[in-house]
Amino acid sequence: MRVVELIRKKRDAAELSREEILYLIAGYTGGQIPDYQMSAWLMAVVLRGMTRSELAALTEAMLNSGQVLDLSELPRKKVDKHSTGGVGDKTSLVLAPVVAAGGLLVPMISGRGLGHTGGTLDKLESIPYFNVNLPLTEFRGVLKACGCAMIGQTAEIAPADKQIYALRDVTGTVESPYLICASIMSKKLAEGIEALVLDVKTGSGAFMKSAEEAAFLAELMVETGRRMGKKIVALITDMDQPLGKKIGNALEVEECIDVLRGRGPEDLKSLCLELAGWMFYLGGGVADVEAGKKLASKIILSGKAWETFREMVRLQSGNVTAIDDPRRLPRARHQSEIPSPASGFVSAIQCEQVGIACVVLGGGREKKDDAVDPAVGIVVHKKVGDAVKSGEALCTIHYNSDSRLAEARRLLEQSYSIRPARPVKTRPLIHSVIGENPQ
Amino acid sequence: MRVVELIRKKRDAAELSREEILYLIAGYTGGQIPDYQMSAWLMAVVLRGMTRSELAALTEAMLNSGQVLDLSELPRKKVDKHSTGGVGDKTSLVLAPVVAAGGLLVPMISGRGLGHTGGTLDKLESIPYFNVNLPLTEFRGVLKACGCAMIGQTAEIAPADKQIYALRDVTGTVESPYLICASIMSKKLAEGIEALVLDVKTGSGAFMKSAEEAAFLAELMVETGRRMGKKIVALITDMDQPLGKKIGNALEVEECIDVLRGRGPEDLKSLCLELAGWMFYLGGGVADVEAGKKLASKIILSGKAWETFREMVRLQSGNVTAIDDPRRLPRARHQSEIPSPASGFVSAIQCEQVGIACVVLGGGREKKDDAVDPAVGIVVHKKVGDAVKSGEALCTIHYNSDSRLAEARRLLEQSYSIRPARPVKTRPLIHSVIGENPQ
Repeated sequence: MRVVELIRKKRDAAELSREEILYLIAGYTGGQIPDYQMSAWLMAVVLRGMTRSELAALTEAMLNSGQVLDLSELPRKKVDKHSTGGVGDKTSLVLAPVVAAGGLLVPMISGRGLGHTGGTLDKLESIPYFNVNLPLTEFRGVLKACGCAMIGQTAEIAPADKQIYALRDVTGTVESPYLICASIMSKKLAEGIEALVLDVKTGSGAFMKSAEEAAFLAELMVETGRRMGKKIVALITDMDQPLGKKIGNALEVEECIDVLRGRGPEDLKSLCLELAGWMFYLGGGVADVEAGKKLASKIILSGKAWETFREMVRLQSGNVTAIDDPRRLPRARHQSEIPSPASGFVSAIQCEQVGIACVVLGGGREKKDDAVDPAVGIVVHKKVGDAVKSGEALCTIHYNSDSRLAEARRLLEQSYSIRPARPVKTRPLIHSVIGENPQ
Repeated sequence: MRVVELIRKKRDAAELSREEILYLIAGYTGGQIPDYQMSAWLMAVVLRGMTRSELAALTEAMLNSGQVLDLSELPRKKVDKHSTGGVGDKTSLVLAPVVAAGGLLVPMISGRGLGHTGGTLDKLESIPYFNVNLPLTEFRGVLKACGCAMIGQTAEIAPADKQIYALRDVTGTVESPYLICASIMSKKLAEGIEALVLDVKTGSGAFMKSAEEAAFLAELMVETGRRMGKKIVALITDMDQPLGKKIGNALEVEECIDVLRGRGPEDLKSLCLELAGWMFYLGGGVADVEAGKKLASKIILSGKAWETFREMVRLQSGNVTAIDDPRRLPRARHQSEIPSPASGFVSAIQCEQVGIACVVLGGGREKKDDAVDPAVGIVVHKKVGDAVKSGEALCTIHYNSDSRLAEARRLLEQSYSIRPARPVKTRPLIHSVIGENPQ
């Protein structure tokens, strides 16, 4: 097999065989195929796309470049959830303990903040001493003990993805639904799960701004998951405004604790129940999604979800005192309110701007190796459709550095639109479900 | 300027500015931009194309990556011809001395055989001791002395092209008319010429098989040349059968000597006069192309063209005795005829097959570093439209190695189509002229 022929084939929009794709990925990770050939092939993929068979082969090749967790010694069904990322998108911290407390196993391998979006690992690390870098043997131990565990990608998991992602990042080949799908699915399937619920975000705070883009990616992932023999569904959910009221690492942990204790904002609670309902349904043991939602609700009210979360934090070396009393989580020294410039109704929030404001405050990374400030963030008081009086606070900035405040204020002021009339209709939280009825 | 942004821009079919393209090429040749970014950009160019402004900027950047010959000390007009390559395509060896003897300067920098096509340098090197690797100072000396000189690309000429071509070769990015145009034009314009005649081949023995592809490339080159302030024209000429009767390095030199001495096959003579006519016309000094053709014809008949060729060979250390008596040029030890399988008329010759047969015999390179056998080749007796009797020789193979004969025979047998009826029409030698009437 000649690599240049495989590049030409994709360039000319022909279909590569499974063997050809496995050869390409194995050759690249093995160091026989140089970066410059892989990047030319990746650009051809960005511009020509892939067939479903090619995509399944690429996912398989990337998955098998590393270890696939074998959790067969643990008899419970293994399920996970993956979100494409958003602002205030913190459901993982709620879902893992809820679903684990409901009898399933949740071996969650997560990522860090990317661009304007937050990351599960950064949030968890705002709990003092919480260790997201467990070796796989310890990960297995935590899973066994409390049914869920949350760590970062290890060197053993899909190393081809890590290598290819680094190349994509510097060669303009990130923005391809095919490559995004293979990257996500290869990592998730390495968890050794049997079922996966995808939360594909759409709107001004999502990577997929349009409903069409989100649906296309969702369909690719569902199709790829099925080809790999998994139970899988994708919910297209709203990210046109932040999810919940808190944005920023420790602030989001605090809000998750609220939900786990039966409180918290309605939209966040509602999305957690929906996703948990699907996880229970795909994991088996409930008749339908509604039954799964009821189970999730019951588990939260019983206190079992909170206990499971507390146990996971303890097993991963986190400071339990800090979650028992969230005032002990890292807190910013200063607060500053953004007042409404007029009376009326919030008609829109430019959600990506809100995410960028949090990054500017230090809650995310502008450069790869930036340290994250766990304490800073934004608390949203008014969401789309809410009435507001002139001068009333739209949101409150939690900050540690005066020099970063001005820019964050400007971004947040610009992100709110206030109109005299109440918006005619608001976007639903769940836009659609892809893969609900497997053939 | 961030390279990844420039890649993304081209990926998304946006137009890069001149400054952006100059930055990209300077960064690549300077070693600041790695191969993997350049190859991703090149693939985006292959699939998205370029605007005329981008193409002119790319050509300019590649041209200025090296030395541009300054021949202003030599007062005569400088013109050249470039062919996109074919089988038996040997006009350069005739044109350079004819046009030089007519009073213009021809500073010709040529290439070697590529794929199934022959190369001027390989042909010249079949003249014993002919040196195609003159340093630029000696090149200048030969030019001054006899009006023409023929050498290979030196390290000083368009090094960016050399570097980019090597990368294109292994990343599936050769086949782009834009990149082909920039590659050709950057090298040719480095000769410091004022006018250029392009011979763009089309047909079964050309790289551009279709008339449309050839016309598109021709238009790109003419437009780019004009933007760089050059007088330029492109002739789309036929390469659906070999040009002339001889294919192979020494055999082609022999045929050129025939033409320079007023003999030789009609099609080759006719194309040489046509191209020389255009070179004289663009170089100035004749009223129109017809006058240029007449001048070329007169120069050949006067013996001046032959004298100039002889002088150039002498100045470039070639063995003049071998061209005075071409029987002293390298000759193959064996000959073998391909008989016609039937009586009738030659209806088609698969011209690329004939070129490959010559490569198989050793007349070209199958791998980059193969040595070329100057003596081997094919003499064509029957061309398209010719009547032939069953058993009569279609062509004769000149070979040195028995082991290579069988494959060459097979290719040549397959390449001829014999039909009972005379072909209704034959293709013209000149299909069209692009850029005849500059706006």
